[in-house]
Amino acid sequence: MDEQTLVFDEIFEFLENKNFPKLREILQEMNPADIALLFEELEEKAVPIVFRLLPKQLAADTFSYLESDKQVQLITSFSDVELREITDNMFIDDTVDIIEEMPANVVTRILKNTDSETRKIINELLKYPKDSAGSIMTTEFLYLDDDMTVKEAFQKIRQVGVTKETINTCFVTKSRRLLGQLSPLELLTNDEDTLVTEIMDANIIKVNTHEDQENVARMFDKYDIAALPVVDNEDRLVGIVTFDDAIEVLQEENTEDFEKMAAMMPIEDSYFKTSVFKHAKKRVLWLLILMISATFTGLLITKYEAAFAALPILISFIPMLMDTGGNCGSQTSTMIIRGFALGEISTRDFFRVMFKEFRISLIVSSILAIVNGIRIYLMYFNSESLAASGTSALMLAVVVSLSIMCAVIIAKFVGCILPMVAKMCKLDPAIMASPMITTVADAAIIFVYFNIAMKFFNI
Amino acid sequence: MDEQTLVFDEIFEFLENKNFPKLREILQEMNPADIALLFEELEEKAVPIVFRLLPKQLAADTFSYLESDKQVQLITSFSDVELREITDNMFIDDTVDIIEEMPANVVTRILKNTDSETRKIINELLKYPKDSAGSIMTTEFLYLDDDMTVKEAFQKIRQVGVTKETINTCFVTKSRRLLGQLSPLELLTNDEDTLVTEIMDANIIKVNTHEDQENVARMFDKYDIAALPVVDNEDRLVGIVTFDDAIEVLQEENTEDFEKMAAMMPIEDSYFKTSVFKHAKKRVLWLLILMISATFTGLLITKYEAAFAALPILISFIPMLMDTGGNCGSQTSTMIIRGFALGEISTRDFFRVMFKEFRISLIVSSILAIVNGIRIYLMYFNSESLAASGTSALMLAVVVSLSIMCAVIIAKFVGCILPMVAKMCKLDPAIMASPMITTVADAAIIFVYFNIAMKFFNI
Repeated sequence: MDEQTLVFDEIFEFLENKNFPKLREILQEMNPADIALLFEELEEKAVPIVFRLLPKQLAADTFSYLESDKQVQLITSFSDVELREITDNMFIDDTVDIIEEMPANVVTRILKNTDSETRKIINELLKYPKDSAGSIMTTEFLYLDDDMTVKEAFQKIRQVGVTKETINTCFVTKSRRLLGQLSPLELLTNDEDTLVTEIMDANIIKVNTHEDQENVARMFDKYDIAALPVVDNEDRLVGIVTFDDAIEVLQEENTEDFEKMAAMMPIEDSYFKTSVFKHAKKRVLWLLILMISATFTGLLITKYEAAFAALPILISFIPMLMDTGGNCGSQTSTMIIRGFALGEISTRDFFRVMFKEFRISLIVSSILAIVNGIRIYLMYFNSESLAASGTSALMLAVVVSLSIMCAVIIAKFVGCILPMVAKMCKLDPAIMASPMITTVADAAIIFVYFNIAMKFFNI
Repeated sequence: MDEQTLVFDEIFEFLENKNFPKLREILQEMNPADIALLFEELEEKAVPIVFRLLPKQLAADTFSYLESDKQVQLITSFSDVELREITDNMFIDDTVDIIEEMPANVVTRILKNTDSETRKIINELLKYPKDSAGSIMTTEFLYLDDDMTVKEAFQKIRQVGVTKETINTCFVTKSRRLLGQLSPLELLTNDEDTLVTEIMDANIIKVNTHEDQENVARMFDKYDIAALPVVDNEDRLVGIVTFDDAIEVLQEENTEDFEKMAAMMPIEDSYFKTSVFKHAKKRVLWLLILMISATFTGLLITKYEAAFAALPILISFIPMLMDTGGNCGSQTSTMIIRGFALGEISTRDFFRVMFKEFRISLIVSSILAIVNGIRIYLMYFNSESLAASGTSALMLAVVVSLSIMCAVIIAKFVGCILPMVAKMCKLDPAIMASPMITTVADAAIIFVYFNIAMKFFNI
């Protein structure tokens, strides 16, 4: 990080002194992802100036890493020739990603400045549902025919050329149907007359264009593959998803889960790019729902007015019982939601998980109850006000400890059932995370607590 | 999933009928990751039988995907010859991963059955700190000398061979120092007499062996690279980390964050592989700490006994205030913790984040306060008990709404400060997630609530 700050400072200095040759020299040595970071720090008017200093290919690579507001700014400042140079040098899937984020007038300009072949592909790709394999795949891949020899494969590769950083896998097809794949290294280490079908790996993993991107990303995690072929309904190879897109999807999906589990609706842009108003909008809905639900717990408490009028100290244990319940519930739901996301748990495991969580809650609740019981006894064993209300510290310790045991078991039970049921109803289990569970468990915990207290203290 | 269940059922049937030729045929068509899943479902005694049906390379690949208990079981049943066949056919980094998880006697057997060259490399790799780039890198990569031509590069590749699925990047070195990299496709599309240094990409991203694996994984996310060269302190190329290891690390780190944010200590094994006792152990410590902290909130409530004796309905709003505060705090802390993890937020942004969260909390709290105020007014506007205590529904609505505004602002403030401060103290901000924040915010919320109430109702 610090090294990068130094480089950035140097760049700012050259920019101020208008030392463009030196600036271009530094930029050429940089990685497009880092240059994109630099653009986030530049003043608005410097953005097109610095961008024009980049060599063509680096400019196109950098462009695809930029945030969408910077992209719009640049496209607006581009001449048609410049725009065409950028789109010609970008991966088609990156172009499609950019188009999906742009306002309509910018999209029209981009499409106007691509050749008809590319435009056709872009329009095809735009048709796939958002978050499907088709929408994240690229159509730029190397394929060989099934009757080719290694020598012919070499010729084809030389002829097609590696214009962009084509992924290093060759796909073998027969009338566009995928037969197998092989790496260029395997071509190099085999005899020139060998048929590609003899050395290819026929055991291939592929997905349909309509497969959900989350499942696609998980296949990369599971199978350790660099590129995943995408086929249409007729089993014809139409594109590939590469590992870098898979990493991006995994990170996006993880962020979405984090947000849902903290009672927020997913936000697509980064923290600072999202406006205060949008942040508020994404957060307030769940807060309203949970606030209204929590009033039921409150109303329930008023039903036990007699109990806490007789023994006001009972109220002081409410936060502890509610918080402990909430924490236990969120532990369980997190384990289960994450288990689903990683494919470690499936809905068939319902009873297995329930039983496991029940045993865990027995151990955990016993420890909490014992520690808490001792704490209460030590704090109140010579309390006069307690004696005045006709009860003892021991009695209080027993009541609260019993309640905490019930609270833990209830919370783990709720934390287990809600995400499981959500998954069974084909909902995202992440929305059933801690806040939801806390609200549901709270009411049950208050109910059990006051009933135990009233029984023991004869209220 | 369902398709896989069908295949598994077929396998179980062949296994029962001892139809091994048919079984071998199915297995050969399967992917090692899927076969590893199959082993999880097999009876213990069937594991070595099915494993021995696999062709050598597939057996080795499958072995590296297995859970460690299955690996121990198999190693125990292997003859020395079989063990050697497996380790010879595995990637060295996978072997190291396995060794790190094995009991000492099994490690000795594995090391005894590798050739001295491999053993030396394994011992080197085992020396790197856990979670460092050195510990996850592989030493199997293709390197070319800086004075080679394309033709000589071809010769070297043919001579070395692609024994295992070597990553498709060739590294150009000069006396072991990394100069650049190029893909085999670039070799194929260039003239035989071209020097590799002319066509290589000299702008390379690399890491030191001691770099933390989380940073390593993030570089894959940032730079879209398939392999990251790892160099020692003398800048010599000693290994590479490949994208599949990076994906694994990213998923591990995400899981760890989820666990920490739900007040659990990280668990390394999967949900079902972890015993009930271990689950309980990982969960109980934070619960104890948070339980004890929550008692302070409880003690604080008892200080306001006069207030709720005069107006018992005040108690019914405690759960709502506490829950809303907790939810708001966890929203903010989640955004910030995730922002740190994705590199979107740094500690330098402290005041920027604070100001942004403050503005968000103003909008959110106003909406919640208004909705809640209306709700209370409508519910209590002709409440006799309220009139009897000498107050009005309007007054109650104002008090609770004001308190909820304060609760939201306090919680967002705490949810913002705690992870930021943790990060500044070089602690993992994830441990400062919702449960911790709820506990801290709760006490402040109760204090503010009762003070507002006592002021307005003159208690």
